[in-house]
Amino acid sequence: MERTTLRRIRQRKADNKIYLCAPVNALVEGIYEQNIPFSEIKKHGDFGLGTFNDLDGEMMMFDGLIYRIGSDGKANQITDDEICTPFSCVTFFQPSSEDELAKELSYEEFLNWLKELMPSPNLFYAFRIEGEFEYVKTRSVPKQENYRPLVEVAKEQPTFEFNNVKGTMAGFYTAAYMSSLSVPGVHLHFITEDLTSGGHLLECRPRKVNVELQYLYTLELSLPSNLDYLTWDFQRDIGKDLDKAEK
Amino acid sequence: MERTTLRRIRQRKADNKIYLCAPVNALVEGIYEQNIPFSEIKKHGDFGLGTFNDLDGEMMMFDGLIYRIGSDGKANQITDDEICTPFSCVTFFQPSSEDELAKELSYEEFLNWLKELMPSPNLFYAFRIEGEFEYVKTRSVPKQENYRPLVEVAKEQPTFEFNNVKGTMAGFYTAAYMSSLSVPGVHLHFITEDLTSGGHLLECRPRKVNVELQYLYTLELSLPSNLDYLTWDFQRDIGKDLDKAEK
Repeated sequence: MERTTLRRIRQRKADNKIYLCAPVNALVEGIYEQNIPFSEIKKHGDFGLGTFNDLDGEMMMFDGLIYRIGSDGKANQITDDEICTPFSCVTFFQPSSEDELAKELSYEEFLNWLKELMPSPNLFYAFRIEGEFEYVKTRSVPKQENYRPLVEVAKEQPTFEFNNVKGTMAGFYTAAYMSSLSVPGVHLHFITEDLTSGGHLLECRPRKVNVELQYLYTLELSLPSNLDYLTWDFQRDIGKDLDKAEK
Repeated sequence: MERTTLRRIRQRKADNKIYLCAPVNALVEGIYEQNIPFSEIKKHGDFGLGTFNDLDGEMMMFDGLIYRIGSDGKANQITDDEICTPFSCVTFFQPSSEDELAKELSYEEFLNWLKELMPSPNLFYAFRIEGEFEYVKTRSVPKQENYRPLVEVAKEQPTFEFNNVKGTMAGFYTAAYMSSLSVPGVHLHFITEDLTSGGHLLECRPRKVNVELQYLYTLELSLPSNLDYLTWDFQRDIGKDLDKAEK
């Protein structure tokens, strides 16, 4: 489908709402089987990120297509809508602004540049970043037993490095005061231009990239109805654990 | 309108969603002018609670009608949809369960009984409680200057006591991990049967009451777009302040 046609479809559907199929604190606690099929997720967005039941790979979605990046760093398109997720964050993507970066930046400079593009730290934003990177470092978690806290899992995560690579990043910004719901700060997943590998972004040095940024003014959060979630005693310091698990 | 007809209308509209027009942390910080008209709030519910611009009274809504309880404890129906709120929490009310209490309970016993009615501490619930009370204590805050933290305002709140009174309570339960979004625990507003007085509930001893409880599985949160919210540096310990301000 042509990019302009795609954009028109997006425009029709977009209502600048971020959708979470579960609060991220459930994932941080180690509830990895929420059994929410992607057929449900697709009703709420064509763009975003997340994970799979049993934490089996990193999820990335753009232009309505879903990719799974396994613990070997390899990416595959997921076409079975009945595959399930315990945590996904999506939107119907329609950029509010578009910016170009034409010089190499360190990861810290890159994050600061993204922050400058956001008119307020207290909204949600979706980012679609495409272009050339001097360096990209990602991770993808291996399939897990249910109930093992995310911070434990992240200690053993396989990481992957890419040099001089073209690709796409998709993700969101969340304000710190909502860290029990979604990963706070800028949270991005990456896939190479040939759609063969990627993962959860740990670090990068962009060289020449295009950033599309969507301002999101509404949050829709679904609360899981499975027994694990309903009976859980949420006491963990989510903010601290997420900081360790996502960086 | 007959109660059965009302119930049918509710049933049609109800999607068991809790709607917040702003996160409560903005109110706790002292942002009292969000200028959100009740015409907007009514699109998202016919039942709930909140406050008014400049914290000018306690708001309570049921059967689609909105009441303002002023700092003199007196209640008036609000019919002007252009009156504004900085924080309101509403739903289209449709009870999931109904229970009767036919003996006097202390406030602590009453709260414990309400907790027992909830199948999980990790969902949202709406409560509509009607009947006879041995005792009810409420507060209503006086109109405030913008930017004065809620915890300061609450220090000087006028309180009101009712003995042997009939009336209605409306409110919500929110899980502690979402205390930056909505008041955690059980949060109720009260109005007397003759609709003349009431306030934010501080204490009560129910004698014979009927409790309708709605399970809410989805949260919709609108983020304010006014400059105060967009530029605020949210650092305050919201949980601690709310505990002082709401009890």
